[in-house]
Amino acid sequence: MRYIKKIPGLYRKKRLDPVPPGSVPGTLAVDPEAAKPKISVIAYGPHELIEKPDLHVAEISEWLGKYPVLWVNVDGLGDADVFVKLSEMFNLHALALEDVLHINHRPKLDQYDDQLFIITRMAQLADRFEYEQISLFVGSNYVLTFQERPGDCLDPIRERLRNKRGLFKTFGADYLAYTIVDAVIDGYFPVLEELGERLETLEQEILDRPTSETIQTVQATKHDMLALRRSIWPQREFLSALVRDPPPSFSERTQTYMRDAYDHAVRIMDLVDTYREISSGLTDLYMSSISNRMNDVMKVLTVIATIFIPLTFIAGIYGMNFNSEVSPFNLPELNWYWGYPLALLVMAVIAAALVLFFKRKGWIGGSEKEKE
Amino acid sequence: MRYIKKIPGLYRKKRLDPVPPGSVPGTLAVDPEAAKPKISVIAYGPHELIEKPDLHVAEISEWLGKYPVLWVNVDGLGDADVFVKLSEMFNLHALALEDVLHINHRPKLDQYDDQLFIITRMAQLADRFEYEQISLFVGSNYVLTFQERPGDCLDPIRERLRNKRGLFKTFGADYLAYTIVDAVIDGYFPVLEELGERLETLEQEILDRPTSETIQTVQATKHDMLALRRSIWPQREFLSALVRDPPPSFSERTQTYMRDAYDHAVRIMDLVDTYREISSGLTDLYMSSISNRMNDVMKVLTVIATIFIPLTFIAGIYGMNFNSEVSPFNLPELNWYWGYPLALLVMAVIAAALVLFFKRKGWIGGSEKEKE
Amino acid sequence: MRYIKKIPGLYRKKRLDPVPPGSVPGTLAVDPEAAKPKISVIAYGPHELIEKPDLHVAEISEWLGKYPVLWVNVDGLGDADVFVKLSEMFNLHALALEDVLHINHRPKLDQYDDQLFIITRMAQLADRFEYEQISLFVGSNYVLTFQERPGDCLDPIRERLRNKRGLFKTFGADYLAYTIVDAVIDGYFPVLEELGERLETLEQEILDRPTSETIQTVQATKHDMLALRRSIWPQREFLSALVRDPPPSFSERTQTYMRDAYDHAVRIMDLVDTYREISSGLTDLYMSSISNRMNDVMKVLTVIATIFIPLTFIAGIYGMNFNSEVSPFNLPELNWYWGYPLALLVMAVIAAALVLFFKRKGWIGGSEKEKE
Amino acid sequence: MRYIKKIPGLYRKKRLDPVPPGSVPGTLAVDPEAAKPKISVIAYGPHELIEKPDLHVAEISEWLGKYPVLWVNVDGLGDADVFVKLSEMFNLHALALEDVLHINHRPKLDQYDDQLFIITRMAQLADRFEYEQISLFVGSNYVLTFQERPGDCLDPIRERLRNKRGLFKTFGADYLAYTIVDAVIDGYFPVLEELGERLETLEQEILDRPTSETIQTVQATKHDMLALRRSIWPQREFLSALVRDPPPSFSERTQTYMRDAYDHAVRIMDLVDTYREISSGLTDLYMSSISNRMNDVMKVLTVIATIFIPLTFIAGIYGMNFNSEVSPFNLPELNWYWGYPLALLVMAVIAAALVLFFKRKGWIGGSEKEKE
Amino acid sequence: MRYIKKIPGLYRKKRLDPVPPGSVPGTLAVDPEAAKPKISVIAYGPHELIEKPDLHVAEISEWLGKYPVLWVNVDGLGDADVFVKLSEMFNLHALALEDVLHINHRPKLDQYDDQLFIITRMAQLADRFEYEQISLFVGSNYVLTFQERPGDCLDPIRERLRNKRGLFKTFGADYLAYTIVDAVIDGYFPVLEELGERLETLEQEILDRPTSETIQTVQATKHDMLALRRSIWPQREFLSALVRDPPPSFSERTQTYMRDAYDHAVRIMDLVDTYREISSGLTDLYMSSISNRMNDVMKVLTVIATIFIPLTFIAGIYGMNFNSEVSPFNLPELNWYWGYPLALLVMAVIAAALVLFFKRKGWIGGSEKEKE
Repeated sequence: MRYIKKIPGLYRKKRLDPVPPGSVPGTLAVDPEAAKPKISVIAYGPHELIEKPDLHVAEISEWLGKYPVLWVNVDGLGDADVFVKLSEMFNLHALALEDVLHINHRPKLDQYDDQLFIITRMAQLADRFEYEQISLFVGSNYVLTFQERPGDCLDPIRERLRNKRGLFKTFGADYLAYTIVDAVIDGYFPVLEELGERLETLEQEILDRPTSETIQTVQATKHDMLALRRSIWPQREFLSALVRDPPPSFSERTQTYMRDAYDHAVRIMDLVDTYREISSGLTDLYMSSISNRMNDVMKVLTVIATIFIPLTFIAGIYGMNFNSEVSPFNLPELNWYWGYPLALLVMAVIAAALVLFFKRKGWIGGSEKEKE
Repeated sequence: MRYIKKIPGLYRKKRLDPVPPGSVPGTLAVDPEAAKPKISVIAYGPHELIEKPDLHVAEISEWLGKYPVLWVNVDGLGDADVFVKLSEMFNLHALALEDVLHINHRPKLDQYDDQLFIITRMAQLADRFEYEQISLFVGSNYVLTFQERPGDCLDPIRERLRNKRGLFKTFGADYLAYTIVDAVIDGYFPVLEELGERLETLEQEILDRPTSETIQTVQATKHDMLALRRSIWPQREFLSALVRDPPPSFSERTQTYMRDAYDHAVRIMDLVDTYREISSGLTDLYMSSISNRMNDVMKVLTVIATIFIPLTFIAGIYGMNFNSEVSPFNLPELNWYWGYPLALLVMAVIAAALVLFFKRKGWIGGSEKEKE
Repeated sequence: MRYIKKIPGLYRKKRLDPVPPGSVPGTLAVDPEAAKPKISVIAYGPHELIEKPDLHVAEISEWLGKYPVLWVNVDGLGDADVFVKLSEMFNLHALALEDVLHINHRPKLDQYDDQLFIITRMAQLADRFEYEQISLFVGSNYVLTFQERPGDCLDPIRERLRNKRGLFKTFGADYLAYTIVDAVIDGYFPVLEELGERLETLEQEILDRPTSETIQTVQATKHDMLALRRSIWPQREFLSALVRDPPPSFSERTQTYMRDAYDHAVRIMDLVDTYREISSGLTDLYMSSISNRMNDVMKVLTVIATIFIPLTFIAGIYGMNFNSEVSPFNLPELNWYWGYPLALLVMAVIAAALVLFFKRKGWIGGSEKEKE
Repeated sequence: MRYIKKIPGLYRKKRLDPVPPGSVPGTLAVDPEAAKPKISVIAYGPHELIEKPDLHVAEISEWLGKYPVLWVNVDGLGDADVFVKLSEMFNLHALALEDVLHINHRPKLDQYDDQLFIITRMAQLADRFEYEQISLFVGSNYVLTFQERPGDCLDPIRERLRNKRGLFKTFGADYLAYTIVDAVIDGYFPVLEELGERLETLEQEILDRPTSETIQTVQATKHDMLALRRSIWPQREFLSALVRDPPPSFSERTQTYMRDAYDHAVRIMDLVDTYREISSGLTDLYMSSISNRMNDVMKVLTVIATIFIPLTFIAGIYGMNFNSEVSPFNLPELNWYWGYPLALLVMAVIAAALVLFFKRKGWIGGSEKEKE
Repeated sequence: MRYIKKIPGLYRKKRLDPVPPGSVPGTLAVDPEAAKPKISVIAYGPHELIEKPDLHVAEISEWLGKYPVLWVNVDGLGDADVFVKLSEMFNLHALALEDVLHINHRPKLDQYDDQLFIITRMAQLADRFEYEQISLFVGSNYVLTFQERPGDCLDPIRERLRNKRGLFKTFGADYLAYTIVDAVIDGYFPVLEELGERLETLEQEILDRPTSETIQTVQATKHDMLALRRSIWPQREFLSALVRDPPPSFSERTQTYMRDAYDHAVRIMDLVDTYREISSGLTDLYMSSISNRMNDVMKVLTVIATIFIPLTFIAGIYGMNFNSEVSPFNLPELNWYWGYPLALLVMAVIAAALVLFFKRKGWIGGSEKEKE
C-alpha cells in the first residue's frame, strides 16, 4: 500500500514563475527542456471533417477561416518561434501567451476582445498526482489548444468527432470548447475514486499498525489534497463565471451544457472537501492510535514490574546475612522448618492478589473482555 | 452498541461517475445490475382519483394530459428503453436524464423551459446511513418521479391522496411536488434522532472504557456526519432558491408551504452541524480519556516501584558478604542483637513515609478523595 | 462545583419532529402529556386596563376588537380544541399553528398577510440549561402568546402594564410585542453571567485537579454552548430582519426600540461566541494539565529508580558468592579492612552525583526553583 | 515575567446588564458606586477658545449654541440627575442614555435624527487589560462625551486645542469627534506593542521551562485576546460604516480623516488577529514542549534501567546459594580462579554494548549530537 | 538547515505607530535613525530618456511637467525637509505623507483627487523575511516613489527603460506605476520558492530527528507565514480594487496589464495559504513524531525490564539463606545435583517465552517486520 517513499509534491523543483521579477510583461519564457511542439488540426463543419496529424506551423494559415470549426492542437511548449507565429495568426495577447508557457499557472478564464482564453488542468494519479496544463483560445470559428506534452484525455472527443458527430455538426467552436473543458473536469472522477481507496487503506493502516512511515504517508496525502483543491477550485470558479455571465459567442444550448460541466465541478469540489477534512483528521487519528498502543506497552510493563518487584523484595529479605547466632531475632524464619515453603506461599498470595487487582482494572486479559 | 465492524461508507465501491470522461454529454449509462423499472401512475383532480400500480411504459401516453394532475412513478433504473420513451413523452432534457441514471448525484434543482427538474435524496439509518436518490420532473400537470428501487417514504402521501385528499383537490402538480420533497426532508428527522442516541452512547463509551475499537467507531461516525452534511446541504440550498425565487408555475399557496419545507431543511442542517461539531471533538475526547488512563497506569507503577526499590536496596546491603571477621567495620549490623528487627523497622518507616508522600500527592486513594 | 452527573442535554428524549414524515402539513400534533391550556387576557388602551386571569376559550371572542390592544396569553399546549377555536378567531395559518405545538422549534419570524408570527425561546439555568418556547402572533390590535407551561419571564411586563403604563399608553400592539421579545432576550444575560462563573470554576478545576469527571463536565459544557448558540443565533437573525426590513404595522418609534433589542441580541451572541471559543479550548487545556501531571509522575519514578538501581547493583556485586579462597582475585574487597565502609561511600557518592544531576535538570525541587 | 496570578478577566464580576430583564427600556440604572460626575467644557471657534474645568450641570445651558463648537465632557456616571438635565438640554434619546450608563456596552454607532451617538472604548494595559467606555453625542455644534472616571487619553487633544489649533479652527464639531475617536483607536497601538512583547516572553518560557503556571498564563492570554478582539472589532465596524456611508453633518475633509482612522482600526484588527492566532497555538506548543521533556525523562530512565537491570541479574546469579559441593555443575564459576574478574568483565562488556546501542539511537549525548 | 536561533520577527522592536496617540493627524514622524534621502529622477517620452542619479530636492521643480513621464525616486526617509518640499511640489496630502514615513504600514491604495497613492511592500528572504515599504504617488505625468533604504527590486525596470523601452514609449505614467507594482509582486515568487524548500527540509527534520530546536523553527515558520500573509493579502486586495474599479487616469491597455498583476497576487496568495496550512499542521506532526519516538523508548524499557525482572526474581529466590539443615523443605533445590543448570534452564525458557511474546507483539524487530 505504501505509495510514496518521501514527502513530495508540495514543493516544486521548477521555478514558480519562469520569468524573473521585473521582466517585461508578456516575456516568452520557453523552457529549454520542454518538448518540441507537435501541431495537429481537425477541421469540420456540418458536412465534412478533415484531419491532419502533423503540421508545420506555417501551414496552419491555409486552414484558417475555411471551415466552420478549426481545432488546432499544439503538444509541447519548447519552441518560441511557433508561439510567435501562432500569436500573429490568431492575434493572441502577449500576456495570455506568457501564461501558456508558464506551466503550473492557476486555472483561469480571460476575455480578450472576442477571444476567450482558458487555462485548465488535467489530473492523473500515478504514484502521485500529476497535472498537465492545457490552455485554450476560443474564437468564433476556431479552438486553439496548448498542452505540455503529447498524450491527453481528449482522445474520446476526437473519436466522437470522427464517428458520431451528432451534436458537433450543428454546434460551433463554443461547443467544442465545452467538450474539452468537460472532459478535463470529468477526468478528476477516476482520480477521486482511486484517492478514496487510498484514504481508506491509509485509515485502516493507522488503526491496525501505525509506523513512522504511516505518518509520512499521511503528510503526503495532505499535500496531495491541498494541491488537488488548489487545482479544482479555480476551475469551479471560472465555470461558475461562465454560467452566471456567459460570453456572447456562446450559444444558449452550449450554455445549458456548460451548466452541466459546472455541476460536475461542484460535485468534485464537494468530494475534495470531504476527503480533505478526512485527511486533515488523520494526524489526530494517528496520535490516538499511537497513544492507545503506548498505553498497552505501559500496562505490560506495569503489570510485570508491579508483580515481581514486591516478590524480589521478599527474596532479598531472606538473602540477608544477619547473624542468627548472636540473636534469636535475626532472621529466625531462616531456621523455621516450613520457612522456605511459607515464603513461597506468601509470594504466591501476593502475586495472585496483584493479578486479581489488575484483572479487575482490566489491565490483564482486558482486550478480550472489552471485545465481548 | 457497536454498530460497525469496519470503517465504511465514505468510500464508494460504485464509480463516482458512471459515464467515462470524454463521453457525449447526455449519455444514458444504465447500470446492468440496476433493478428493472416498475411504473405506476396516480391521476387525480378535484373530483376523481384513478390509480394503476403496474404499467407498461407505452401505456402512459394514454393518461397524458387527461387529468389535472398525473403522477408517474418509476421504481428501478435498469432499462434504457423506458427512459428513451419517457424522454420523448415528457420532453425530458438529455442532460437531466443522464443525471437521473447517475445515482449518488448531488441534490439540485434545474429549470428546463417550463419543466422543473429536482434531484433529492432519501435517508435511512440501518446499521449505517443509506441513501436513495429520487428525481422529480415537475410540469404544469404532471409529476414524474424516478427511484433507485421499490420501497420509499412516499406511502403516507399516497395514503393521503386516496383518503383525505383535502388540499390535493384544489392544488395542482406543484403541491404534489412539494409534498414529495417535504416527505423526503422530514424523513431526516428520525435519522437524526437515532444518530443523536448513537452519539450519546459513543461519548459515554469513550469516557467509560475507550478501546481501540471505539476510535474506529468515532472515525465511522465522522464519515457519516460528512456524508449526511453533503446530502442535506444542497437540498437546503435548492429549497432556499425555490423560496427566494419561486418558479412561475408554483401557486402562491404552494410557495407558503415550500417555505415550511425550507424551514425544516434549515433545522436539519442546524442539527447536523451541531452533531458534526460534537463528533469532530470526539477524537480529542478519546485522547483525553486515554491519557487519563495512562496517567492511572503510571501512578500505580510509580507508587509500587518507588516504594519497593529503596527497600530492596536495603535488603541488598545486608545480603553483601563482606567479611566481618577481618574488620569490625564490615557489616557490623549483621551481628547486632536487634539487627534484623531494626532493618525491618527502617524499611517499614521508609515505606510508610513514601505511602504518606503519595497519599499527599493524591496518587494513592486519590480517586476516592477527588470524588468527594 | 460539579453540576452534572452524566452528559446530557444535547440529545433530546422527545421526538425532534412530533409529526411523522409525510403527514399533511399543518397537522396539529398535541402532546398528550402537555399541560392543559390556561388562558388569560389583558386589554388596555390609553385610558383603561382590564385584566382577566382565567378564561374559557369561547369567551375570548367577546374581547376581540373592543380595545386598542388585546393580549391573550395561553399557558400549556395540551388541548387541540383550544387551538382550533383560536385559529378561527384570529385567522391563524395552519402551518404556524403546527409550529406552535412543535416545541423546540427553531426561533423564527414569519409574515402571514397582516399578521406577524414569531417563535422565540426563553432560557433558564437551573442545573442545566432549560428552554421554553414562546410563540407570538402579532396583529394590528392584538398579541397572542403561547407558552409551554405556566410561569414565565413576562411578569415584569404585566407589572409595568398595571402600574406605570408610560409608553404602553401611546404605543400599540407592536410595542407590546417588542417588550415581550426584549424581555425574552434580556433573560439570557443572567444565564450568561452564571455560565461565565461556571466556566471560570471549571477552568480552575482543570488546572488544579483534573479528574475523569472534569472531562465529563467539559463535554457537557460544550454541549450547553452549542445548544445556547443554536437558540440565540436565529433570534439574532430575525431581529436583524425586523430592523433591516420592519413590517409596515410597526411604528417608527417601535422600530427604534426594536433596534435596541437587536443590539442586545448581538451582544449576547458576542458573549456566547467568546464562551464557546473558551469552552472549545478546554479539552486541550485538560490534556495539557494531564500531561503536566504525568510528567511529574514520571520524574518521581525516574529519580527514585535511577538513583537506587545502580546502588542495588553494587550491593548485588558484593552479595555474590565467588570463592575468595581459590583465588586472590575473587571478590578481594570482601576481605578488606575498610571494605564495607568504602562500598557505602561509593554508593553515597553515586547517589549524591545523581541527585545533583537531577537537581540541575530541575527534576528535584524544580517546582520551587521554577516559581522564583 | 509572570503578570497574572489567577485566570481572570473573561468573567466579569459586574452584572452583564445592569437593568433587570423586563424593565422599561431606557431605564437609567445608575451604579451607586460609580464616581460622581465632574463636568468640564471647552468652547472654541476660529478666533477664540474658552475653557472651564469644573461646572455645575445647570450652567451648561448658558454655553449652548453660543460658540461654533462646544465640547462638554462628563467624567463619572454616578448621578442620575445630571443625565436627566443633560438629556433635556441636548435632547438625548432615553435608549442612548441607558447605553451610556451601561458600561461594558458593545462599541456602536447610532444615528438619532441629526445627532450621532457613538460608544467606543479606551484600552490600557496595566497588569491586565483594562477598558474604559467613552460615549459621544455629536451634534452640529457640540460634542458631548461621557467617561467612567477621570483620566483619559484625550489630553493631547486638549493640548492641541489650546496651542496649535491648526485644523480645529476651520473644522467643526465633526472634526473634534474624529480626533477623539482617532485618539481612542491609536491608544491601542502601545497596548499591542506591550502585548507583543508579553507573547514573545511567554513563547520563550514555554520552550525553555514550561511549568504548570505557564499554562495558566497561556489561558489568561487567550482570554485577553478574545476580550481585545471583542473590543476592537465593533469599533472597526462602525468606522467602516462611517466611511462607506458618512453622515451628512460630516464635511468631506473630515471624511478623509475618518478614512485614516478606519485604516488604523483595520491595522489594529490585523495585528489582533495575528496575535490571536499565535496565542491560540500556544496550548499546542506547550503540549509539544511538555512531551519533549517527558521524552527526555523517559530516555534517562530507560538508559539507566536498561543498563543496570541485566547487570543486577548477573550479580543475582552469582549470589545464589547452590551447593557446589553436591555437584560440579552447581555454580562452578564461583570456584574458578578468574571467576570474579571474568564476571566483572562480562558485565562491563554488556554495559558497554548497551551504552553503544543507546548512543547510536541518540539517547545518550544525543542532545549534543543533534545540535551539531 | 537551522535558519534561526531565536523566535523572532513577529514582534517588532520598532514602535507600531511612530506617532504618539492623540497627535495631530498628518504629523511627520521622521525616524532620527533613518537613512538620509537620496533622490534620483528618470524622465522619458516617446523620443528621449534623461536620467539623473543624485539630485537636491530643490532641483526637482525644474523637471516637473516638462516630460511625458517623470519618475522621482527617494531612497531613505530621514529628512523631514525633503518631504515638506516634495509635498508642496506634488501637492501631497498630509495623511498620505504621514503614512509614507510610517514604515510597516499596511499596504493600501488611496485616491486623492487625481492622484493615486499606493503603499506596497517588497519581500526578501535572507535568514528571515525582510520587508521594505515602497510608497507610490501616481499623477497624470509623474510617479513619485519612496523607499526605506537604497537597493531595491526595480533595477530591471530601469534597465528596460534605458534599453528596450518598447511599451514604455507609448504608455504613460500609469504603465510605469504598473511595472513597479508588478515587479514588487513578482518579487514574492523567489521568496516562496525558497520558503517551500525550507518547509520541506523542516518537515523531513521533524520526521527524522525532532529536537527541541525543531519546534522553535516550526514556531518561527508559523510567524513568518502569518507575516507573509499579512503582507500579501492587502496587496491582493488593492489590486482587486484597481481591476474592478480602475481609476480614470489608467488607460485601458494598462488595465489589462494590471489584471495580470492581480492574477499573480492571487496565485501568491494561493501558495501562501497552502504553505500556511502546511505549517500550521507542523506542531501536530511534531507531536506525532515525538510520540512515536517515546513509544520506541517505552518499548525498549518494557522489553528489557519485563524479561529481566522475573529472572532476577528467580536468582533472588536461590540467593535466600533458608537453613536447609533444619528442614528438607528449605531450598532443597540448592542441594540438587542439577540444581544450578536447571535454574538456568528455567530462566532461559522464561526469557525465550517473553522474547517470543514481544516478537509477536511486534515490539522486538518490529520495525523490520512492519516495513515488509
